[in-house]
Amino acid sequence: MSELVFRAARRPADDDSLWAILEPVVREGTTYPVDPAVSREEVFGYWFAPDKQVFVAETGCVLVGTYYLKSNSTGPAAHVANAGYMVLPAARGRGVARAMAYDSFARAAEQGFAAMQFNLVVASNAAALHLWQSVGMAEVGRLPQAFRLPDGNTVDALVMYRKLEGVL
Amino acid sequence: MSELVFRAARRPADDDSLWAILEPVVREGTTYPVDPAVSREEVFGYWFAPDKQVFVAETGCVLVGTYYLKSNSTGPAAHVANAGYMVLPAARGRGVARAMAYDSFARAAEQGFAAMQFNLVVASNAAALHLWQSVGMAEVGRLPQAFRLPDGNTVDALVMYRKLEGVL
Repeated sequence: MSELVFRAARRPADDDSLWAILEPVVREGTTYPVDPAVSREEVFGYWFAPDKQVFVAETGCVLVGTYYLKSNSTGPAAHVANAGYMVLPAARGRGVARAMAYDSFARAAEQGFAAMQFNLVVASNAAALHLWQSVGMAEVGRLPQAFRLPDGNTVDALVMYRKLEGVL
Repeated sequence: MSELVFRAARRPADDDSLWAILEPVVREGTTYPVDPAVSREEVFGYWFAPDKQVFVAETGCVLVGTYYLKSNSTGPAAHVANAGYMVLPAARGRGVARAMAYDSFARAAEQGFAAMQFNLVVASNAAALHLWQSVGMAEVGRLPQAFRLPDGNTVDALVMYRKLEGVL
């Protein structure tokens, strides 16, 4: 894969390329707290919520990934960041998510965040879990049956966390 | 203490009574992710955010506590509730928080929520921790140094969780 370049998402220029990434992930319904049946407009509303910065990973002229970065909380807890990542189905398994994770950690550290927190990692998603652990995210909590899969079964969700010192 | 009555908050009729509860808790800066220096308007904006239902605990004609109830997440994780509780300083230590917890659990269960999650319980707050454990909230996660106290020191925050089956 050619080198990945990270930049801020541009709207509406990137919208169709973003939708090719966002739609399959949302429709799958197994990773994000988003109703799989929502409209394109609602998905964009979620991904580009006012408190989020959105970035894209570009290789050549193709967007292969996108992530958002935000403060996980406010006031006395505003120094902890939160991020979410999505990869174009055709580009999965090629290190895009890992590269986005590192890019997001660096940006978060630059912006003064002290830690990164993921609030809802579906525990049955072994690949994601392994990936996040390999980039330093530790499982710090387990929420029993907090996520409902499309088949109606509920699974545990994990809270993952890492400090960002030493990232830059 | 006379019997506690729970009802939905009424605005603007309850505003001054609510402010007597909200202001000291927020100014203290040790329990909620709210900047202790924020304005009354901002505090009301936080407590009455559009996704929150707000209730008050009344004894005689005095509001001694308030809590909010909301969905902690969306879509496939919308079945987990979240709540926050504040007690009038003069009424502390009289079981108001405990009574509000039970009231919130019952309301959440009635509304179909399967579990209650607290995202950010300051770990150094032994009284709160003990109280929440006594009403069935289990510590399911620990966020290292996720909360900054007014003295500048950071402390761990806990994620607490309980299922709501059997509450009604």
